[in-house]
Amino acid sequence: MRSSNITDLTPLAPFAVSLGDPAGIGPEIVAKSWVMREARGLPPFFAVGDAASLRAVWLGPIAMIGSPEEAAAAFGTALPCLQVAEAGDIIPGTPGVDGARTAFQSLEVTVGLARSGSAAGIVTAPVGKEQLYGVGFTHPGQTEFVAERCGVAPHNAVMMLAGPSLKVVPITIHIPLAEVAAALTIDLIRARAITTAKGLQRNFGIARPRLAVAGLNPHAGENGALGREEIEVIRPAIESLRADGLDITGPLAADGMFHARARETYDAALCMYHDQALIPIKTLNFDDGVNITLGLPIVRTSPDHGTAFGIAGTDSANPGAMMAALKMAAEAARARLAYVG
Amino acid sequence: MRSSNITDLTPLAPFAVSLGDPAGIGPEIVAKSWVMREARGLPPFFAVGDAASLRAVWLGPIAMIGSPEEAAAAFGTALPCLQVAEAGDIIPGTPGVDGARTAFQSLEVTVGLARSGSAAGIVTAPVGKEQLYGVGFTHPGQTEFVAERCGVAPHNAVMMLAGPSLKVVPITIHIPLAEVAAALTIDLIRARAITTAKGLQRNFGIARPRLAVAGLNPHAGENGALGREEIEVIRPAIESLRADGLDITGPLAADGMFHARARETYDAALCMYHDQALIPIKTLNFDDGVNITLGLPIVRTSPDHGTAFGIAGTDSANPGAMMAALKMAAEAARARLAYVG
Repeated sequence: MRSSNITDLTPLAPFAVSLGDPAGIGPEIVAKSWVMREARGLPPFFAVGDAASLRAVWLGPIAMIGSPEEAAAAFGTALPCLQVAEAGDIIPGTPGVDGARTAFQSLEVTVGLARSGSAAGIVTAPVGKEQLYGVGFTHPGQTEFVAERCGVAPHNAVMMLAGPSLKVVPITIHIPLAEVAAALTIDLIRARAITTAKGLQRNFGIARPRLAVAGLNPHAGENGALGREEIEVIRPAIESLRADGLDITGPLAADGMFHARARETYDAALCMYHDQALIPIKTLNFDDGVNITLGLPIVRTSPDHGTAFGIAGTDSANPGAMMAALKMAAEAARARLAYVG
Repeated sequence: MRSSNITDLTPLAPFAVSLGDPAGIGPEIVAKSWVMREARGLPPFFAVGDAASLRAVWLGPIAMIGSPEEAAAAFGTALPCLQVAEAGDIIPGTPGVDGARTAFQSLEVTVGLARSGSAAGIVTAPVGKEQLYGVGFTHPGQTEFVAERCGVAPHNAVMMLAGPSLKVVPITIHIPLAEVAAALTIDLIRARAITTAKGLQRNFGIARPRLAVAGLNPHAGENGALGREEIEVIRPAIESLRADGLDITGPLAADGMFHARARETYDAALCMYHDQALIPIKTLNFDDGVNITLGLPIVRTSPDHGTAFGIAGTDSANPGAMMAALKMAAEAARARLAYVG
């Protein structure tokens, strides 16, 4: 029982959606999501960015708003847009400096609105990291920026990839595969597992989350014959977490964890490295995978794909993941209303 | 066009199926496959092992045969069985020394029959490696044993996992993850790719196989930012293979390679390590994944699962992968009839 009827009926504030890089597919998938708002039961939301980037790819109705409070009334008949700095000439598929500044500012504004409670949460469209770095953005990615603005240490903001079939959390993320084994520590696994369990409670309303932990090596190391990290790091971490009361199993052979029957036995899989987590989720939920950041005081989701500059402006972007991100943000916001933690 | 009508109508010799460890699920899934022979269009086959291991778990008709030639006539009304050494007392779920000897001998006999042409190919049920090691088996696994008996160097026998949705070949297999990066060489990737392409031609009748190669690191290394193996090893291997005329692409970000649309763009994926290959195939085809050995003079397949001692004797083993292995063996044998290489 995730939430009571009372919380189900409480109106949520609208969600703030940063348009991301104005030359990427962000504006297009946000506009397409608005078109599908009723068919997909999406929560009220408003775009944050340069309205010209929407105009460049979409002919539908846009309502310029001065504050989030105006968004709910406008949402039924037009896509509400809160203008930030203008991005200059917008050429879909061709990112530029002005666009990167707009993306940066859009992100800053959405976080602020969610922190203040004017937005029920944020959904972030993709940015070009290279472009952002060029305009003074010093964080590795949007997640770390959002964490800092929320007063959360970057390592306590945890990336979960969630789809209809599976939820995964990579313990290590953007490091070379050869460095993964050395990067794994009992403390790191413990921290990620605790944030994940708490995140499942707060954002998904799962009272007693079941975690499954992957091994690092083939067959989870086969009792040490194929690697000792399971024995020396992963198993001790699991045992200490279990002693703390977590419902957690493993280390499991990673190749046997992701078929349909196995997935029924846990709520989230903790994986040791990027591809161990992202291969199964993208194999199963390529078009509707959502990146949700756990460990933040605000709700933050994003579609699990990039700017796709190569197809921007061709009206061929699939809004599936953006719509899934909006729905998941709404579910997370409702679950938080019901959460007593 | 895999094969002409003429080759489709050529009768194949029956397939030799080793029963594997008599205390594992091998006998049960072979018997269950025989029951389903017509419904699933399975090729004629005969069991090689101790008939008592079939009797221990199955009450259906068994025809003891003295040679493979008798199998085809018997197959319609009984499961043909070629007796090897008796395994002594058989207790499903409790492997023993006599059983291991029987498993070893069954494997030896099936390979010999296929080498001589009396069997159209072999399908091997699972063995307990630990048990085999205890009776003087010195090969890492059945694949290496079969390769040696066929006069093929172990490193030239290539394991492919194949299911209805995907075919994958791991470049490195049973080594710790931390050792993968150092084990990758241009020569190794080239050898695996060439055997894979040839194997797709011979066993699957694909005239011009399309190979996709995964990167090792997240996002295939992101131009070196997340690891240099793509630049220093994988890409040079791919380029030299392409120069040799192979239809080969990559290195690709592994997490984007295995969703439905991506899978349409290649015939087999070459992966850098065990779980990169086995996570997607087992996520998609857990119950009907087949292990087919490429690079051998004979056809050899096996179900992609183990002895499952824990459920042996409970009549709950799923014969899906064994049936898929039998069908794939038949298709491979037919493709070889049509192959001019």
